Amino acid sequence: MTTRTSFDPQAFRAALGTFTTGVTIITTRDADGAPVGVTANSFNSVSLNPPLVLWSLAKSARSLPAFSSNPFFNVHVLAAAQEGLSGRFASQGTDKFDGIELDEGISNAPLLPQCTARFQCHTAFSYDGGDHVIYVGEVRAFDRSEQPPLVYQGGQYALAARRPREELRLASPPPPECSYTEDLLGYLLGRSHYQMLHLLRRMLSGHSLDEGSFFVLSVLCIRDKLTLEEINAFVGYTGIDATEQAMEALEARRFVARERVRREIRYVLTADGREVVLRQIALAKAQEEDLADKLGAGDVMALKLLLKRLVASTDPGLPDLWAPR
Amino acid sequence: MTTRTSFDPQAFRAALGTFTTGVTIITTRDADGAPVGVTANSFNSVSLNPPLVLWSLAKSARSLPAFSSNPFFNVHVLAAAQEGLSGRFASQGTDKFDGIELDEGISNAPLLPQCTARFQCHTAFSYDGGDHVIYVGEVRAFDRSEQPPLVYQGGQYALAARRPREELRLASPPPPECSYTEDLLGYLLGRSHYQMLHLLRRMLSGHSLDEGSFFVLSVLCIRDKLTLEEINAFVGYTGIDATEQAMEALEARRFVARERVRREIRYVLTADGREVVLRQIALAKAQEEDLADKLGAGDVMALKLLLKRLVASTDPGLPDLWAPR
Repeated sequence: MTTRTSFDPQAFRAALGTFTTGVTIITTRDADGAPVGVTANSFNSVSLNPPLVLWSLAKSARSLPAFSSNPFFNVHVLAAAQEGLSGRFASQGTDKFDGIELDEGISNAPLLPQCTARFQCHTAFSYDGGDHVIYVGEVRAFDRSEQPPLVYQGGQYALAARRPREELRLASPPPPECSYTEDLLGYLLGRSHYQMLHLLRRMLSGHSLDEGSFFVLSVLCIRDKLTLEEINAFVGYTGIDATEQAMEALEARRFVARERVRREIRYVLTADGREVVLRQIALAKAQEEDLADKLGAGDVMALKLLLKRLVASTDPGLPDLWAPR
Repeated sequence: MTTRTSFDPQAFRAALGTFTTGVTIITTRDADGAPVGVTANSFNSVSLNPPLVLWSLAKSARSLPAFSSNPFFNVHVLAAAQEGLSGRFASQGTDKFDGIELDEGISNAPLLPQCTARFQCHTAFSYDGGDHVIYVGEVRAFDRSEQPPLVYQGGQYALAARRPREELRLASPPPPECSYTEDLLGYLLGRSHYQMLHLLRRMLSGHSLDEGSFFVLSVLCIRDKLTLEEINAFVGYTGIDATEQAMEALEARRFVARERVRREIRYVLTADGREVVLRQIALAKAQEEDLADKLGAGDVMALKLLLKRLVASTDPGLPDLWAPR
């Protein structure tokens, strides 16, 4: 950590960017009644009594005249699903409001739908802030939804992974040399997987299926007419070996059928097989909703995002299940 | 989403809390030269030229006289590891600075170490903000480190899970009914685990070990003198069945030894066995550091946090490895 007293603007911006923020769109109407809106992360709460919030806008912004002349503005705290909207309102486009069905607000300022929270404001003060104007607004109405909010950090969009209020220990404190059960990614990943697999196995036992057969059926549900070798190219990384005997067992239960194509045996899913797979996937989705209730919808979204990035980073080169052929 | 125009302060605070922020500690010195500091998430950047930042402080705060009389203050953007410090400076204690070795700054305002970023400021303006004062400071020096920052959302501490700049797809777009490979938690978790296990297996093959034996040795590394039944109580949830034959094979390789205690056979790890386990754990940690380089240290921290919460939520009641006995 070295102290800089000279102001490299890029380094200054990067240092400021370490402060995490939500993302807002702030809207008003100009003198002609045209809707105006900008993406801003300079929002913050100021006062509870009176209820005040603030944000700042560059003096060079094309929307400055509108915000300076119209005392009404709305602050929209964007939801994780509104990243596209954030980008749209951050750009110079003239058609920012195209196709958006506005909600009815208490003023003429446009009120965008599907946000995490909204604050309908009336400018109380506007202050000098160097190359920006600081607008302090009195909140006259507000609302919020259960949508997980969009996050911005270090110049990138993000989601929040919330820490529990109490320190979370999986077991009694381990000795330092064996702390892997509390902090080794491989262990936590394995334990999460096996515990989820435990639930899957219980569901599968209702159909007298094991996870190996389920993985094979899932692959055939997406990609039909595979040889045994091709099936193994998809499931082999799990350690499962789809054998001819295993396929015969699935055939005997009428979940798969074999076709002879140019002297090769290729497997297809039967209607029964497809039904079993889709029912299991539906059960897994229901189980996931229970988890979202426990962990929080935003946290589950963050977990899936991080796992997806982990999968992409450690991919041993698995074949693409959906590649056109 | 319902609009509220009456001001339930709790609902207003909850709506404001959906806007994610970083966490800062802001410090100065009072007229007697005593260090003063408060935790604040009302920080934000204002202007690049001149370089200005702002934050707001309750007019009722005990530290108000110090911040009003001393024009120098330092803003510390807290790192994820500084949650404890955040709590300490948010409380009323008089010994907030106890045991903290301050860094040398450009003013007399206390400069705390080990933060994500720091801004050394001189008050440029102070503005009325209802029940708060808004301080706008000119940044005279700043620095930053690579520490992942602490995040605050909805009244809880959090970590940021950053989204990649480009949309991340694991394969060609799947048909909607089979989108589970892009968004089903169980699939993403399984695939992450099997891909990591693939790396582990490659490491283990150097010792001609499989993961089942490794799991058994790991348990014995933490907890000695277990019966076969007790070993299986720890590893059984993975689907692995530790058999007497498997234990005999580990004994033949001198990784474990058996002891007869009151007519029961109990297994202990040999020095060789312990060495193999610890070497594997060290390799797994090194692999994890490579991943942290790819995903980002903060993202790996967030992933581990979320997995830990998932493990706690889906725990089938595994025995506590470190419980005193």
